[in-house]
Amino acid sequence: MSELFDPVLAAGAVRDEVSDAAWLRALLDVEAALAQAEADAGLFPREHADRITEVCREGYFDVAEIGAKAVGIGNPAAPLVREITTKVGGDAARYVHFGATSQDVMDSAAMLVAKRALPALLEDVEAAAEHAARLAREHAGTVQAGRTLLQQAIPVTFGLTAAGWLSGLDAAARRLRGVRLAAQLGGATGTLASLGERGPQVLAAFSRRLELDEPALPWHTERSRIAELAGALGELSGIVGGASRTITLLAQTEVAEVAEVAEGSGGSSTMPHKRNPVAAIAAQAAAQQAPGLVSTLLAAMTQEHQRAAGSWHAEWRPITELFRSTGSAISWLCTSFERLCVDAARMRKNLDATGGAILSERVTTELAKDTGRLAAHDAVTECTKRALAGDGELADLLAEDPLVGKHLSREKIGQLLDPADYLGSARPFVERALAAHAQRKEAS
Amino acid sequence: MSELFDPVLAAGAVRDEVSDAAWLRALLDVEAALAQAEADAGLFPREHADRITEVCREGYFDVAEIGAKAVGIGNPAAPLVREITTKVGGDAARYVHFGATSQDVMDSAAMLVAKRALPALLEDVEAAAEHAARLAREHAGTVQAGRTLLQQAIPVTFGLTAAGWLSGLDAAARRLRGVRLAAQLGGATGTLASLGERGPQVLAAFSRRLELDEPALPWHTERSRIAELAGALGELSGIVGGASRTITLLAQTEVAEVAEVAEGSGGSSTMPHKRNPVAAIAAQAAAQQAPGLVSTLLAAMTQEHQRAAGSWHAEWRPITELFRSTGSAISWLCTSFERLCVDAARMRKNLDATGGAILSERVTTELAKDTGRLAAHDAVTECTKRALAGDGELADLLAEDPLVGKHLSREKIGQLLDPADYLGSARPFVERALAAHAQRKEAS
Amino acid sequence: MSELFDPVLAAGAVRDEVSDAAWLRALLDVEAALAQAEADAGLFPREHADRITEVCREGYFDVAEIGAKAVGIGNPAAPLVREITTKVGGDAARYVHFGATSQDVMDSAAMLVAKRALPALLEDVEAAAEHAARLAREHAGTVQAGRTLLQQAIPVTFGLTAAGWLSGLDAAARRLRGVRLAAQLGGATGTLASLGERGPQVLAAFSRRLELDEPALPWHTERSRIAELAGALGELSGIVGGASRTITLLAQTEVAEVAEVAEGSGGSSTMPHKRNPVAAIAAQAAAQQAPGLVSTLLAAMTQEHQRAAGSWHAEWRPITELFRSTGSAISWLCTSFERLCVDAARMRKNLDATGGAILSERVTTELAKDTGRLAAHDAVTECTKRALAGDGELADLLAEDPLVGKHLSREKIGQLLDPADYLGSARPFVERALAAHAQRKEAS
Amino acid sequence: MSELFDPVLAAGAVRDEVSDAAWLRALLDVEAALAQAEADAGLFPREHADRITEVCREGYFDVAEIGAKAVGIGNPAAPLVREITTKVGGDAARYVHFGATSQDVMDSAAMLVAKRALPALLEDVEAAAEHAARLAREHAGTVQAGRTLLQQAIPVTFGLTAAGWLSGLDAAARRLRGVRLAAQLGGATGTLASLGERGPQVLAAFSRRLELDEPALPWHTERSRIAELAGALGELSGIVGGASRTITLLAQTEVAEVAEVAEGSGGSSTMPHKRNPVAAIAAQAAAQQAPGLVSTLLAAMTQEHQRAAGSWHAEWRPITELFRSTGSAISWLCTSFERLCVDAARMRKNLDATGGAILSERVTTELAKDTGRLAAHDAVTECTKRALAGDGELADLLAEDPLVGKHLSREKIGQLLDPADYLGSARPFVERALAAHAQRKEAS
Repeated sequence: MSELFDPVLAAGAVRDEVSDAAWLRALLDVEAALAQAEADAGLFPREHADRITEVCREGYFDVAEIGAKAVGIGNPAAPLVREITTKVGGDAARYVHFGATSQDVMDSAAMLVAKRALPALLEDVEAAAEHAARLAREHAGTVQAGRTLLQQAIPVTFGLTAAGWLSGLDAAARRLRGVRLAAQLGGATGTLASLGERGPQVLAAFSRRLELDEPALPWHTERSRIAELAGALGELSGIVGGASRTITLLAQTEVAEVAEVAEGSGGSSTMPHKRNPVAAIAAQAAAQQAPGLVSTLLAAMTQEHQRAAGSWHAEWRPITELFRSTGSAISWLCTSFERLCVDAARMRKNLDATGGAILSERVTTELAKDTGRLAAHDAVTECTKRALAGDGELADLLAEDPLVGKHLSREKIGQLLDPADYLGSARPFVERALAAHAQRKEAS
Repeated sequence: MSELFDPVLAAGAVRDEVSDAAWLRALLDVEAALAQAEADAGLFPREHADRITEVCREGYFDVAEIGAKAVGIGNPAAPLVREITTKVGGDAARYVHFGATSQDVMDSAAMLVAKRALPALLEDVEAAAEHAARLAREHAGTVQAGRTLLQQAIPVTFGLTAAGWLSGLDAAARRLRGVRLAAQLGGATGTLASLGERGPQVLAAFSRRLELDEPALPWHTERSRIAELAGALGELSGIVGGASRTITLLAQTEVAEVAEVAEGSGGSSTMPHKRNPVAAIAAQAAAQQAPGLVSTLLAAMTQEHQRAAGSWHAEWRPITELFRSTGSAISWLCTSFERLCVDAARMRKNLDATGGAILSERVTTELAKDTGRLAAHDAVTECTKRALAGDGELADLLAEDPLVGKHLSREKIGQLLDPADYLGSARPFVERALAAHAQRKEAS
Repeated sequence: MSELFDPVLAAGAVRDEVSDAAWLRALLDVEAALAQAEADAGLFPREHADRITEVCREGYFDVAEIGAKAVGIGNPAAPLVREITTKVGGDAARYVHFGATSQDVMDSAAMLVAKRALPALLEDVEAAAEHAARLAREHAGTVQAGRTLLQQAIPVTFGLTAAGWLSGLDAAARRLRGVRLAAQLGGATGTLASLGERGPQVLAAFSRRLELDEPALPWHTERSRIAELAGALGELSGIVGGASRTITLLAQTEVAEVAEVAEGSGGSSTMPHKRNPVAAIAAQAAAQQAPGLVSTLLAAMTQEHQRAAGSWHAEWRPITELFRSTGSAISWLCTSFERLCVDAARMRKNLDATGGAILSERVTTELAKDTGRLAAHDAVTECTKRALAGDGELADLLAEDPLVGKHLSREKIGQLLDPADYLGSARPFVERALAAHAQRKEAS
Repeated sequence: MSELFDPVLAAGAVRDEVSDAAWLRALLDVEAALAQAEADAGLFPREHADRITEVCREGYFDVAEIGAKAVGIGNPAAPLVREITTKVGGDAARYVHFGATSQDVMDSAAMLVAKRALPALLEDVEAAAEHAARLAREHAGTVQAGRTLLQQAIPVTFGLTAAGWLSGLDAAARRLRGVRLAAQLGGATGTLASLGERGPQVLAAFSRRLELDEPALPWHTERSRIAELAGALGELSGIVGGASRTITLLAQTEVAEVAEVAEGSGGSSTMPHKRNPVAAIAAQAAAQQAPGLVSTLLAAMTQEHQRAAGSWHAEWRPITELFRSTGSAISWLCTSFERLCVDAARMRKNLDATGGAILSERVTTELAKDTGRLAAHDAVTECTKRALAGDGELADLLAEDPLVGKHLSREKIGQLLDPADYLGSARPFVERALAAHAQRKEAS
C-alpha cells in the first residue's frame, strides 16, 4: 500500500477490497455476526447482540491506533475487541467476542475479505475474457505466423491466439469460483469450550450470517483453504503472465502485429516513435509477484498443534499482496486488451517474410505420400535452404527440383505454400473455445 | 533419482510412477494412442496403427540413448519418434507421430504420468486418512493440553487433534481428485494443420483412448492444468507438513505424548534413550520441497506465442520432483501414523503440570457472569500468578480470594478446573470430521 | 505499508527507510546529484545545477499525484521529472534529468534507499548480536540439555546456544556490509549517448556524489547487485528464523527454559498463565517472508536487451518488502533477546528428567575403551532402556551390570553421568565466537 | 538424475560432481580426514587412522545398499559408518567416526562436494566469460538497435550487449569464489564432548586436511554458509537467464540478428527453415529452476536447537539440484555463445527499419538547445509521427519543418540521424568491462 507505486503495481478495484479499511470492516462484521449468532443460539439476549452490532456498524475505530496496540499480543483482533467492548459498555459488553479467540476473528475476516475481493477480481477476469472472446471472434480469419521457440512456424490465426487466452482466463475463473471460503470459530483451542454444548449451533448460525461455508471443525492449523485460494490466484497470475508476454512480443518494433493505443500512455518522452505496451508490461510485472507469494503461503501451512506460533501470522501480508498483485495483473491485462490495435496486414506481411518457407512442412507432407517421409524431407529441406540463401523463390525452386517436380505441379506447390489454405482446425478450435466460454458463463 | 538419497527423500510408491521408465512408457503409449486415433478417424489404415502400437508396446528402447540424443533438439520426444519410426519400418513408418509435435507427446505423456501417479499417491493419502480417522475415533475421549503459540491452553482431546489431520487430508484428496488432466494435441502450432478437417475428430479419439479429458483447444502455452496439478500437490505437502510438525513436537523428550515405535528405526546409535520420530522428520523434510517447486511451475506459466522457448522445458524437472517429494511426504506420514504410540497418561500428566492454571479462563467466564469481565479477569489473573509462583494450589487461592470466594464455592471451583469437564464441542467436532470423511470416501 | 498490520509485521526502524517518503527523497537526491555531476563535467553552468538541486531539496512534491501520473509510462520517475522541470523553470529546466532515462533514476534511487536502510538494519543486527554475545558470556557455564531432532541429547550450555546465534548474526552482518551498491547511469540504452564523450566523467562524478560504487558500465539488465542484496537480506532473515524458532521452543510450557518478560506484552487476555513469546513469534512470521521475496527477485533477473519489459518493474515491490520484513524480523528478535529471562534452574531440571540417560553415550565411550564399541553399546543400551522403563536409577543399573560393573566403578559411573562434567569444548567454542565477533566489529 | 532428461536439463561437467558417487566419495574422504585429524591430535595411534583411511580410499561401498539402510535413521552417513566399521575391523574399528555425529559427516561432505563442483562450474563460467569478452571485443563497433521495453530505442553496439553479459558473469564468478565453505565437526550437540579438551585441535586438523575453512564453532543449525552458496548459485542462474533470454529474442525470425549454428542441433524436423536456438533455450529452462530451489534452502534455515528435525534433511536435494541446474544453465550458455553467428548486416538493417525515427531524440536534444525542450519535443514528435505514417523520409520532413529547419540544416539532420555517430560511451564502456574482466582474472 504505497501511494507512489500502487497506481502501477496495484491497479484495479481489488486493491481497495483488501485495504486496511476493508480488513477493519471485515473484522467488525465478524464480531457483529458472532454476537448475533450467539443470540440466535440463545446464549444471551438479542438486545446485547444488537448493541454490539450497532457499535460494529456505526462506531468509529482508528485503524492506526488498533494497529499500534496489536504489538502487545501480536495481532490486531485483540485490541479491536477491547475497543469494541469499551464502546459497547453496559451488560452487553461482556458478550463481545464471547467464546472466540483472536484467530477466529482474523481468519473469518480474511475469508470475508477474500469473499468481497473475489467479485471485483472476477469482474476484471470476465471483462478480460470478453475482450479475448471478441478478439477471437473478430480475428478467427486473420492469418498470423505461428511461433514456436520464438521462431516462425506454420500459420495460425490471431483469433486462435486470442482463443488460447480466453481458455486460460476461463480456467482461472472457474477455479476461483470453486474456492472454498469457510467461517472460522473454535475458541482458544478449537473446542468452543465456553459455548458449552451450543458450539455447533453457533458455528452454523455464524457461518450462515457471514455467508461463508460452515466447516466440519475449526481449521486453525489446517490451512487447505488458504492453499486453495493462493493456488487459484497464482493460476490466474500465471495466465495473465502468458498473455501479457505474448502481447509485448507481438508489439516488438520488428514484429509490430499489435500495439496498445491510448491517450497519454506508452509514448516515450525521449523517443516519440516508441509505443510501449505499458499495460501489458505492468500486467507482466504484477503477475511475476505471484509464485513467490504462493510459495510463502504454502510454506506457512506447516502449523502446529491447535494454533501456530508464527506461520499463521506469516499469512496476512502475502495473502493481501497476492490479491493486490493478481488484481493488478488482470486489471492491466484488461486495459491492454482494450487498447489493443491489431494490424492484420502486418501479420500477413510477417508471414510472407520467409518466402513460404514456413509452409515447407506442408510440401513435405504432401510429397511424402509418394516418396516416403525421409526423401521428401531431404528434398524440401534442400530447396528451403537455397531459398533462404537467396537462390530464388521457394515455389520455383521446389518446382524445379527433380523429385518434387516429378510429383507436384507448380500450381499445386503454390497452393500448398498459401498460409490461408493451411489453417487446419484453427477455426473450429476458436469456436469450441467460444462455446466453452459461453457455457461457463451460463453456469456461473 | 538418487540411490543414496531416494530411500529417505523419495519414499513410497509414487517414485516409480514418475521414473524414467514411467515417462518412457507414457511417451510410447501416447504415440500408440495417436496412431490408433488417427486410424479411428480414417487417416490411414488400421494395420499401420497396429504396427506402430506393436512397436510401442513391445519394442525395446534405450532410455539413456534417447536421452542423449535429446540434446540436439531439446526434448526426448523427437529422438524417440525417430527410433520408433525406424523400428516400425515399411509403409506404416510414415504415420508415426503423424501431424503431431514433440510437445503434444511430452505434454500428453506428462498428463498420463500424472494420471498413473495419482492413484499411488491417493492410496497413501487414503491410508493416512484412515489412520487419522482411527486415531480420532480411539482418542475422542483422550484429554490433552491444547497448545497455542506453543503454550499450553485449554484442553482438547487427542482425537480432535487427529480429526484436524483427517480433515486436511480429506481436503487434499478431494482437490487431487478434481485436477483436470487433458490430452494435448495441436501439431506444430496448435492448428492440427496436417490433419486437414479431421483435427477435432482425432483429438476426441486420442483423448478417449488415453482416458484423458478432451480440451476445447490445444493448450501448449495455456498451462492452467499444470498450475492446478502443482497447486493440489503443494496443498497435500502443506497438510503433511503441519501434521508431521505436530508429531515431532508431541514426541519431544519434555512432552513425550506420542512416540514412533518401530523395529530398526529411530534409535540413535550413540544415544540409546533417544527415540527419533524418523518418519515424521522425513515427512517434514519432503513436504518442505513443495513450495519452491510449485513456485517454479507457476513462474513457468509465462509461456509465449504457440509454444514457448524455455518455460515449457522448465516444467519437466519440477513436476517430476513435486510428485516424488509429495509422494515421499505422504508415505512417511503414513508410516509415522502406523508407528505412533499415544501415551494418554502422559497427556493427562502434562495437562496437570500447570496446576489447573490453563483452565483459569473458565473460572473467569463463570465469575464474569456476576462481576463483569474485567473484575473477574483481574481477580483470577492475580490468583493464577500466585499459584504459578508457588503460593499454593490454584483452587485454594481462588476459594480464598474475596471476590471469587464470594461468588463461587470451592467445589464449584474444583469442577471448573477439571479439564475433562471442559471440552466443549471436541466430541461433536470429531464426529463431524469422521462423517465428512465417510461421505467423501463414498463420493470418490 | 499498512497501519493495521505494520506495527506487528513491519516493526523497527527500517520501515521508514523504505517508505514512499524515503523513495521520493532518494529520487530527488538522484536528480540533484545528476545535475551537479553534469555541471562537474562542464556540460552546463553550475548555476543550473544549483537551481535544480534547490528544487529537489526544498520543493514540495505530492507523492500521490506523482504515483497517479506514473500509470501513463509505467514508473514514477518520469512524472517526477516533469514536475521538477516545471518547478525549476527558466534556462535550467532544460538540464533536468539531462541524458538520463527513468531507469537510471529508479535504480540509483533503489541503491540509495538500500544504502540508507542498511545502517538502520545493521544497527538492529549489531544490537541483537550484542544481546547474543551477552547471553553467551553470561551463560557460558549454564548447563542445558542439548536437543537434536527435538529429542534431548548430551548437554550443552545455554551460552553455546547463544554463541550459535551470535555467529549467525555476525555472518549476516558481514555479508550485508559486503553488498555492492552502485550508481546507475546509462541513458536510454546504456550508451549515455546524449552526453557525447563525457559519459564516463559524468558517471564518475554522479557515483561519487551519491557515495555509491561506480560501475564499469550501466547495469540496466545485469541485476547481480539486486541478487546480492536480496541474498544478503534473505540470509539474515534465515538466521533470525532459526534463533526465533529455538526461542519459541525453549519457551514452551513443558520446557520453560526461557520466557519473554515485558510489560503489556505476551499475556493472553483469556489465559492469564500464558506467557506468549510474542516478539520471537513476530520475528518468525517476518522471517518467513524472505524466501518467497528472494525467489521473486532472482526470477526477475531474466531481463532482456537494454532495458526489460516487466521484470525490472517487478523488482520494486519485493525489494521494498524484503527490507521491511527483514527489518521487522531482526527488530523483533532484538526485542525478544531484550525480554529474555533465562531459567538456569529449569534448564538443569529438564536435563535431569531422563535420569542421566542422555549421558549414557559417555559411559559407552568409556566402556568401549575396554570392551570394544559394540559390546559397550549393547550393555549400556540395555541398562538405559531399563532405567527409562522405571527399573531403577541408571547409575545403579549400570554399576550392577556384569560387563559395565567389571570395568567401571559406581563413582566413576556417577561422574560420567554428571552433565557439568561433559561439556567438551562448549566453553572454548563460546570464547571463539566472542573473539570472532569482537574482530568483526573492529573490522567494520 | 535421470537418463532421459539429464542430457538436456543437467548438461555439463557439474552433474558428475554432485552425483551419488561424488557424495559417497566425499563422505568417505570426510571419515578418513576425521580419523587422521584425531590421530594428529594424539587421540589414537596413527596406524588406526591409516587403516580407516585405507578402507575409505579403497573399499567398495554399495551406494544403493547404504541408501536403502538410511531409512532407519534418516540419513546415509549412519549406515555408511557401520559399513566402514565392519570393513575396518580390529582395534581400529572403534575409532571410525570417533566423536562425530551423522550431521558432521553429511555437512562436511556437502561442503566438500561444493568445493569440488565449484571448479567445474567456474570453468564453464570463465569459458562463457571469455566468449562474451571475445564478442564484446569483436563487435565493439557493430551497430545494433538498442531495445527497451522490447521496442527499438537509440543504437548500441552488439559489443556493448556482450559486455553486459561479461560483466554479469564476472560478478557471479567473483561471488562464487567468495563463498565460505567450512568443515563441520561438533559431535552430537556441537560440544565435541567425547574428544575431551582436544575438540578445537581436532577441528583445526580436520579442516586443514579437508582444505575447508575452520569455523569458530559448529554450525549445525547456523546455516549462513548454505544460504551464501545458494545465493551465489542463484545469482549465476539469474545472469544466465538474462543472457539466454536476450539471445532467444535476437534469434527470432523477425529479428534474426544472431543464430546458433551447429551440426545436428536446432533444426526442426518438420520445419527445415527453422533454426531453434536450442542451447539458449536449454540454458533458460535450467536457469528457471534456481529461484524456487534457493527459496527452499532459505526457508530451511529455520533450524532449531542443536540439530534440526527436518529442515536439515530438506537441504540435500535442493543443494544438489541447484548445482545441477546452475551447472546446466552455464554449460548451455557457453554452448550457445560458441554456436553464435552474429549477423552485423541484419543488425544494421533492423536499425534502419524505422527510418531514423529512433534517433529523433538526438534531433530533439540538439534543437532544444535553441528552442527549449518542450517546443523541440513537439516539433520532432510531429515529424516522426508523419514519417512513421509514410508521409516521407524523416530527415526531409524535419528539414521542411519551420521550427526544425530554422535551426538545423539538412546535412546536420542527416548526421544526427546516423546511428554510427550516436553511440556515446558504448566503446569506453566495452573497454571498461574488458579491463575489469582482466583484473578479476588476475586476482582469482
